[in-house]
Amino acid sequence: MADERNQTSLLTHEPAEDLGFAQIDHDRARRLGFPEVIYGAGKEAGEVVAIFKRLTARHDNVLCTRCDAQAARLALEQVPDAAYEARARVLYCRRRPTIALGKVAVVCAGTSDLPVALEAKVCAEVLGCEVELVVDVGVAGIHRLFAKLETIRSARVVICAAGMEAALPSVLGGLIDRPLIAVPTSVGYGASFGGLAALLGTLNSCAAGTLTVNIDNGFGAAYAAALMLR
Amino acid sequence: MADERNQTSLLTHEPAEDLGFAQIDHDRARRLGFPEVIYGAGKEAGEVVAIFKRLTARHDNVLCTRCDAQAARLALEQVPDAAYEARARVLYCRRRPTIALGKVAVVCAGTSDLPVALEAKVCAEVLGCEVELVVDVGVAGIHRLFAKLETIRSARVVICAAGMEAALPSVLGGLIDRPLIAVPTSVGYGASFGGLAALLGTLNSCAAGTLTVNIDNGFGAAYAAALMLR
Amino acid sequence: MADERNQTSLLTHEPAEDLGFAQIDHDRARRLGFPEVIYGAGKEAGEVVAIFKRLTARHDNVLCTRCDAQAARLALEQVPDAAYEARARVLYCRRRPTIALGKVAVVCAGTSDLPVALEAKVCAEVLGCEVELVVDVGVAGIHRLFAKLETIRSARVVICAAGMEAALPSVLGGLIDRPLIAVPTSVGYGASFGGLAALLGTLNSCAAGTLTVNIDNGFGAAYAAALMLR
Amino acid sequence: MADERNQTSLLTHEPAEDLGFAQIDHDRARRLGFPEVIYGAGKEAGEVVAIFKRLTARHDNVLCTRCDAQAARLALEQVPDAAYEARARVLYCRRRPTIALGKVAVVCAGTSDLPVALEAKVCAEVLGCEVELVVDVGVAGIHRLFAKLETIRSARVVICAAGMEAALPSVLGGLIDRPLIAVPTSVGYGASFGGLAALLGTLNSCAAGTLTVNIDNGFGAAYAAALMLR
Amino acid sequence: MADERNQTSLLTHEPAEDLGFAQIDHDRARRLGFPEVIYGAGKEAGEVVAIFKRLTARHDNVLCTRCDAQAARLALEQVPDAAYEARARVLYCRRRPTIALGKVAVVCAGTSDLPVALEAKVCAEVLGCEVELVVDVGVAGIHRLFAKLETIRSARVVICAAGMEAALPSVLGGLIDRPLIAVPTSVGYGASFGGLAALLGTLNSCAAGTLTVNIDNGFGAAYAAALMLR
Amino acid sequence: MADERNQTSLLTHEPAEDLGFAQIDHDRARRLGFPEVIYGAGKEAGEVVAIFKRLTARHDNVLCTRCDAQAARLALEQVPDAAYEARARVLYCRRRPTIALGKVAVVCAGTSDLPVALEAKVCAEVLGCEVELVVDVGVAGIHRLFAKLETIRSARVVICAAGMEAALPSVLGGLIDRPLIAVPTSVGYGASFGGLAALLGTLNSCAAGTLTVNIDNGFGAAYAAALMLR
Amino acid sequence: MADERNQTSLLTHEPAEDLGFAQIDHDRARRLGFPEVIYGAGKEAGEVVAIFKRLTARHDNVLCTRCDAQAARLALEQVPDAAYEARARVLYCRRRPTIALGKVAVVCAGTSDLPVALEAKVCAEVLGCEVELVVDVGVAGIHRLFAKLETIRSARVVICAAGMEAALPSVLGGLIDRPLIAVPTSVGYGASFGGLAALLGTLNSCAAGTLTVNIDNGFGAAYAAALMLR
Amino acid sequence: MADERNQTSLLTHEPAEDLGFAQIDHDRARRLGFPEVIYGAGKEAGEVVAIFKRLTARHDNVLCTRCDAQAARLALEQVPDAAYEARARVLYCRRRPTIALGKVAVVCAGTSDLPVALEAKVCAEVLGCEVELVVDVGVAGIHRLFAKLETIRSARVVICAAGMEAALPSVLGGLIDRPLIAVPTSVGYGASFGGLAALLGTLNSCAAGTLTVNIDNGFGAAYAAALMLR
Repeated sequence: MADERNQTSLLTHEPAEDLGFAQIDHDRARRLGFPEVIYGAGKEAGEVVAIFKRLTARHDNVLCTRCDAQAARLALEQVPDAAYEARARVLYCRRRPTIALGKVAVVCAGTSDLPVALEAKVCAEVLGCEVELVVDVGVAGIHRLFAKLETIRSARVVICAAGMEAALPSVLGGLIDRPLIAVPTSVGYGASFGGLAALLGTLNSCAAGTLTVNIDNGFGAAYAAALMLR
Repeated sequence: MADERNQTSLLTHEPAEDLGFAQIDHDRARRLGFPEVIYGAGKEAGEVVAIFKRLTARHDNVLCTRCDAQAARLALEQVPDAAYEARARVLYCRRRPTIALGKVAVVCAGTSDLPVALEAKVCAEVLGCEVELVVDVGVAGIHRLFAKLETIRSARVVICAAGMEAALPSVLGGLIDRPLIAVPTSVGYGASFGGLAALLGTLNSCAAGTLTVNIDNGFGAAYAAALMLR
Repeated sequence: MADERNQTSLLTHEPAEDLGFAQIDHDRARRLGFPEVIYGAGKEAGEVVAIFKRLTARHDNVLCTRCDAQAARLALEQVPDAAYEARARVLYCRRRPTIALGKVAVVCAGTSDLPVALEAKVCAEVLGCEVELVVDVGVAGIHRLFAKLETIRSARVVICAAGMEAALPSVLGGLIDRPLIAVPTSVGYGASFGGLAALLGTLNSCAAGTLTVNIDNGFGAAYAAALMLR
Repeated sequence: MADERNQTSLLTHEPAEDLGFAQIDHDRARRLGFPEVIYGAGKEAGEVVAIFKRLTARHDNVLCTRCDAQAARLALEQVPDAAYEARARVLYCRRRPTIALGKVAVVCAGTSDLPVALEAKVCAEVLGCEVELVVDVGVAGIHRLFAKLETIRSARVVICAAGMEAALPSVLGGLIDRPLIAVPTSVGYGASFGGLAALLGTLNSCAAGTLTVNIDNGFGAAYAAALMLR
Repeated sequence: MADERNQTSLLTHEPAEDLGFAQIDHDRARRLGFPEVIYGAGKEAGEVVAIFKRLTARHDNVLCTRCDAQAARLALEQVPDAAYEARARVLYCRRRPTIALGKVAVVCAGTSDLPVALEAKVCAEVLGCEVELVVDVGVAGIHRLFAKLETIRSARVVICAAGMEAALPSVLGGLIDRPLIAVPTSVGYGASFGGLAALLGTLNSCAAGTLTVNIDNGFGAAYAAALMLR
Repeated sequence: MADERNQTSLLTHEPAEDLGFAQIDHDRARRLGFPEVIYGAGKEAGEVVAIFKRLTARHDNVLCTRCDAQAARLALEQVPDAAYEARARVLYCRRRPTIALGKVAVVCAGTSDLPVALEAKVCAEVLGCEVELVVDVGVAGIHRLFAKLETIRSARVVICAAGMEAALPSVLGGLIDRPLIAVPTSVGYGASFGGLAALLGTLNSCAAGTLTVNIDNGFGAAYAAALMLR
Repeated sequence: MADERNQTSLLTHEPAEDLGFAQIDHDRARRLGFPEVIYGAGKEAGEVVAIFKRLTARHDNVLCTRCDAQAARLALEQVPDAAYEARARVLYCRRRPTIALGKVAVVCAGTSDLPVALEAKVCAEVLGCEVELVVDVGVAGIHRLFAKLETIRSARVVICAAGMEAALPSVLGGLIDRPLIAVPTSVGYGASFGGLAALLGTLNSCAAGTLTVNIDNGFGAAYAAALMLR
Repeated sequence: MADERNQTSLLTHEPAEDLGFAQIDHDRARRLGFPEVIYGAGKEAGEVVAIFKRLTARHDNVLCTRCDAQAARLALEQVPDAAYEARARVLYCRRRPTIALGKVAVVCAGTSDLPVALEAKVCAEVLGCEVELVVDVGVAGIHRLFAKLETIRSARVVICAAGMEAALPSVLGGLIDRPLIAVPTSVGYGASFGGLAALLGTLNSCAAGTLTVNIDNGFGAAYAAALMLR
C-alpha cells in the first residue's frame, strides 16, 4: 500500500468521486494507505455494488463489511475476482496478497465467536497481513490456551475475540508482550446485554494496555493491526 | 402558512374534529402555522387514511411520518395528489411548494444515513422550505466536507444527520455561523445501542449551540428549521 | 448453630421483639440456623446499638455489616466482648468459634479488593466457618494463582472477590471442582460504573456454575458458603 | 463422575481434541468432575453435532444447552440414546442416572417460568442429581408456597426461577436453611427490560446468602447445585 | 379541604401570586383540594421561607418537602406554629388535623427505610389523613408481616416503603384488598443503583394493581392516598 | 365481588387447585375480591385454555391478559360466553357487569396509545367498573383536553395512557382532584427506549400524587382503579 | 458581532494563540461571529484567568461558563469591567450590549430551575440578545403559563428550562409558533437520574420541532438562540 | 527493558514476592518487558509505599497510577529518586530514560483533558518512549489541529484524549496513517454521564481502526503505545 501514499500535504486532496448517494474518497489510499472501506449495513444493494465497482476499478484490495448475501451476489456478478466470506459477511477483492510485514494472531475464545474472528481474519488478510487463527481457547480450560501460546507469541500483534464475560484478553494480556486488541462479541444472553458485558470486561481489563474496539468489530481490530504492522 | 394564522387568543380554539379514535386539531394551522402532522406508527392503516383524508380536505400541505407502505398505498388511492417517499416512509401532500423564506441544508454523514436525511428533506419541503441535500461528507474524509462548505453556508439553517459517533455536527458547528440541528441516527451496531452513542455525541458536542432532536427524527429537525425560516 | 433449630413448623414462630423502630426476628436462629444480621447502613447509631445489644443478649455469634465507626464505638462500649473490623466495616460478636464443617477459601484478585474479602472472611468466621485468605492472585500474573491452587482446592467452598473486569472467577472456575461464589467489587473507575462491569462479568462467566452476589457483598457470599457447609 | 477425576496436578492435562473449529476439553471431566458442556447458541448445526458426537463417544452424561430444534434433530439421528427437551432447548445424553447425593428442589414462581425451570431440572438430572419440581408458587398467593414448603425443605439445595420482580427467592430465603440459587427469568414486559428487573431483584435480595446466576440460566444453577451435592 | 373547592370552571382561576422567583398557585386549593406543596430542593433558604410564609398566611395546612435544616430553622422563626420533621426533611403547618376520611397504613420493610416512611406519614397527616405506621416487616421474616396484617387491613389505603429488591409490596399485594402504593427506596448498595432495583421491582410486581411512585417519594404516595380518601 | 370474600383469617386458605403446570389460586377471590388473573405471555396455548376453563367454571368474571390470537380462539371454542378484544389482547368472561361503584375515566394521549387504553378499559369493565374512554387529547393541542375535562372530572378515578414523553398525566394531574394512574406506553422510537422515556416521565411528574404502573400495563391500572372503587 | 466576520475562505485562518496549555481560537469571532467561549470546569483557576484575559484583550463580549467562585474572583481582579453571576456560575464581559435582533424568552418551569435559566439569560445577553425571563410556570398550574403566553409569544425564540419530567416544553410547543429550545435540568431525585428523565422527555416531545440541548446547558440554548437572531 | 526478558517458557516463572497483602509479580518484567504497575486507588498509603519500595529495589523504571498525594509524599521520603506528577496522580521512578524506539504523540482535545493527557505522557516516558504533547486542538476550531498535523504525523503512535462527545479521534483517524489510541475522558456534564458519551463516541468512531481504552485511562494508552514501539 505504501506505493499509494506520498508526502504531499494532507490538505491537498484528490477530490472525492461523486455518485450522488456517496462521495468516494479515493484519496484515502494516499492519505491512510488503504482505500475507503464500505460499510454495507443500511445501504441498498445497488448502492453497495456501485461503490464496490468504483473502488475495485481503482484499487487492488477492497473491503466491504456487513454486506448481506444479496448485495454480495450482485457484486460478484460484476466484479468476478471478488470473493465473499458469508459467515463474516465480508465482500472483498484481494489482488495483492502481502503488503504489511509480520503476522497477526487472531485468537477466539469460543466456537460461537467464529464469525467475528473470521471478519478479523479476512479483513487483516485483505489489508495485507499474514494471519494465524487460533480457535476455542477460552479460559474455562486454560491449558488449551497454554498449548497455543508459542503460536500466538510468534505474531507481532494479537487480536482476541471473546464474548460473554470476555476474560480471555485479560489472561492473554498477562502472558504476551505484544499489542493486544480485544474484540468483545455479542455472544451470550441475558445479562450479556448484546455484548455490553464483554465490552465492559475488556475496557476494565486488569492486563495493562488492553485495547478495545466496538462489539463484534473484527474489521476495526484488523485495520488497527495492519496500521501497526506497516 | 402565515395566512392560516391569526392573532385571536390562543385559548379560543376551533374545536377538534372528533373521529372517535382521533381528535383532529384543525386549529393547529392557525395556532402554529402548520396543520397537525400524523404520526403513522402504531396506528391501523384505516386510521391513518381517515385522518389523512380529513386533513387534506382542509389543508394544502399535509404530512404523515413513519407511514408503512400499506397505509400509504390505501391513502394514495383516496387522495390522488398525495405522494409517498418510501425510503423515508413519509406520506404527504404538497400543493403549495414555497412558504418559508430561505434555504435549509440537509447534510448527511454517510450513505446509510440517507433514509433519515430524506425524511428531513421531504418534510422540510412540505413545510414550505427550499432544501439542499449534501450526502456522504463524514469526518473520516474531511476534505469532502470542505468541498461542500460554501453550499452549506448558503443555507440559513443546517440539519445534519449522522450515526455511529456522530462527529460531523461538532466539526460542522465549528465552521458555520448558522443554527445547526443535529439528527443522531440509529446507523451503527454494537455499542451504538440503537443510536444512543450518536445521541449522546450530539448532546455533548463541543461546538457551541448544537441542537439535538430524537434519534432518526428527521421530521422534527425539518419542523424546527421551518419555524426558524418563517 | 444447629442447636438453635428444631423441626417444628416454619409457620409457628416465636414472635418478633418489637423495639418500635425494629422488629427483631429472634426466631430466625431456629428457622435459618443463624440470628438476624443487622444491616448497619441507613440506621442511626442508636438504632444499631440497641438492636446489637438485644441480639447479643440472646445469641452467641452476631453480625452487623456496613457499620460505621461511630456506631461501632458505641456498641463496643456496651458489648465488651464484641469486636470491629474497621476496613470491612463489620461489627460482630463471636463467642462460638467453630460451627460449620470444612473450610472456606476467600480469594481476592487484587489488594484493592481486600475490604470486600475481609468482609467475607470475618462474616464467614462469625458464621462458624474456618477461612483461608488468599490475596492478590489476579489473572494478569496467572502463575500466582497456580501457586495457591492446592490451598484453594483444600477448601470445600470458594469465594472469589474481584473488581474491574472480574476475570479471576472464570479462570478459577475452570480449575476447581468446588462451588464458587463470585463477589464482584466496585474496584475500578470509568467504565467500571461502580462495579457494574465486574458484576456483568461474573454473571456471564463461561465457567459453568459460577454463582454471583451483589457488588461488594462479601457478607452474602459468606452466608451462602456457611449454608453449604452445614 | 468422581471416577473420572484424579489428584495429579491441575497443570498436567490431557491435551484438548482439536476439531479445527473447536478444542474439546476432555480433561474437564477429570478436572471438574463433569465433561465440557456445549453452548449451542451461535454454533452451526454441524458444529454442534460434531462436538456432541465426540463428547458422547467418551463420556456417559453429556449436555448441550440452547440447542435449536434442527441441530437436535441431526444429533439424535447420530446419537440414538440422546434425548431432547424441546421447551428447555436442552440436548443431552444421560447414561448414568445418579451420581451426586441428595436432592435438588427446582421451584418456579409462575407457569411462564417453566422453560427455565425445565432447563434447570434436566441439566441437574444429567449432572447426576435427583430433582423435585415445584411449579407456580409465586408470592401473590403465598399460601401455595407454604403448602409446598416441606417438599422444598427436603432438598439439600434449592433453585428458584422467577421473572418479573422475582420476589419469590427473597421470601423463600427467609423460610429455608438451604443454599438458595435464584435464576432470574426474562418473563415480563416493559420495565422488566428483558429480565433486568428480576436480576436486580435477586442480587439485592434482603434474604441473606441468596445466590444469583445469569438471566434464564437454568443450566448454571443446576451445575452449581451439582457441585454442592458432590 | 373540601371547603376550599368549588365547582366553577377549572379554566377560571385566581391569578398566581407573583414573587418574582415564584408564582404561587393559591388557586390550587380550590382546584385540587390542597394548596401548592413546596419542593425545597434546589431553592435558596430565603426562597423557601418566603413561599412558606405566603402559603401559611392563606392556608391552614401547608407542606414543604426536601427542606434542609437551615431553611427549616429560618421558617420556624417566622411561622411559629410550623414544625419540622428532621429525619424526613419535611417542614409543615398542620392547623386542621382531620380532613379526609379513613386511615392510611404506612408499612416499611426495614428500619433503614424509616426516613421515607416518615415522609409519607407526616405528609399524609398534614393532608388530613389518620395514619398507622408499621415498621420492619420485611419478607425475610415473613411472620412479622402476618402479625401486623389485621392492623394493615384496617386501613383503607396502604403505602409500602421498601428498598433493596422491594419484595414486600408484592407479598402484601397478595394479602390485602386495598389500593397499595409502593414507594421504592434508595436503601441498598451496589446493584441497587440508587433505588433502581427497588423501582423496577415494584413496577414489575406480580401482585395485580400495585402502584408505584418515584424512588424515596413518600410525599407522592401520601398525596395519592389522600386523594383516594376524600 | 364482595360476596366472594369473608373475614376468616388470611392464613386459612382454600388450597390451590393443582394442574401440574399451574397452581390455581381460587382463594384469591375471597382474599382479594377478584379471582386470579391469567398472564398469557410465555404460556402455551393449551395451558392458557386449561387455566381459563377452570377459572370460568368457578367464577363469573375472569381475565386473561397478553393472550395471543391462537390461544384466544381455542378458549372461545371451549368457553362460549367468553370474548376476546384483539387489539388489547385480552381474553375475558364478564357475566356480572357491574360490581364496583362509580366511574373510571380512561384517557389516552394519542391514537397510537389505543391498544393500551383498551386493555385498561376492558379490564376495568370485567372488574366491574363503568368506564368512560377519552381518546387523543395529548398536550400538543391542549384545548382538546379542556373540552373533555368535565367528562373526566365526572369519574372517581382517572387512568391516563401516554407514550413518548408522557406529558399528559402531569397536565391532567394539575387539573383534577381525583386519584390519577398513569400508564406509560411504549409508543415512540429512538430515545423512547421502549417506553422508558414515558415511564421516567410519569415517575417524575411534577403533579403531586401521580401514580405509575409498568409500561403498557393497562390491566394493572384498571385493577388498582377497581380496588379504589370498591 | 457581524463586524468581526468576513467572507474569506473558512480554511484561511488567523493562527491560534498558543498559551501552552491552550490554543486560543481568536479566529472564531470571524468564523462564527462570536469569540471562543471558555468552559471553566476542569481547568485550574490560573488557566481560566489567563485565557479570559487574552480574550477580553481582543474582544468586547466574552463568556466563561461553569466558572467556580475562586477563578471568578481572580479574574475580576484582573479584568475590572468583567462581572460574575454566581448562581449561574457565569463569568463574563459585556461591553457591547445589543448585537442580535429580536428578543429571546427564557421560560423556566420551577424556581429550582432558576440557576439554569439564569445561565441561559446571562449568556444570551452577553451574546447580544434582549431577554425576557418568565419563572415558575410549570404545568401543574397551567393557568400560570397562559397568563404569560403573550409575553412569551412576543419573543422570536423561546428557551424553556425544565427538570423532573419536563412536560412544560411539550405544552409550550403546542401553543407557540416560534423555535423552541428545551433545556432539561437536573432538578429532581430518584428516577430523575441526574436529569435523564427530563432529557428523554424533551427528546420525545410530542410537540413537533422541539429542540434539545444537554442537561443544564443553558449556555448552549442561548448560543443557538443568538445564532437564530443574527 | 528487553534485557529483562528472555525466551524461556512462559510457564516457568520466578515466584511472586509475598507481602501478605500483595503478591509482587517481579517476573512480569521478564514476561512482558515491564515490571508490575501499581494501581494506587483503594490501597492504603502504607501498602502503596511498601510495594513501590520493593519494585524500585529491583527495577529501574516503576509506575504507580492513581496515587493520592499522601501516599506519594510517603513514598518520596523513602525512595528519593522517585517523582510525583500531581495533576496526573502518577508516582514514578525513571532511571532509564529511553528504552523504546520512536515517538508517541499525546494529543488532547481541550485544556480540561490535560490531567488525562499528562497521565499518558508521564507513563509513556517512564515506559521508555519519547513523547510529544499537543494540547487544545479540539474540532470546534479544526485549523488548530491542521497546524499541528505534521508534528503529530512525526510520531509512530498517536494517543488522543478527548471528553464530551470525543469527536477529535474520528477526525484525526481520517488524517493519519498511524495506530490511534483514543482515551475518552470524563470531562463534561449532564448527558456526558461520567465519560460514557465520550466512550461510546470512540467505540463507534467512523475512522477505521480507532482503538479505545477505559475512560480517563491515560496509563493504558501509554502502555499499549509502548508495546507497539518495542
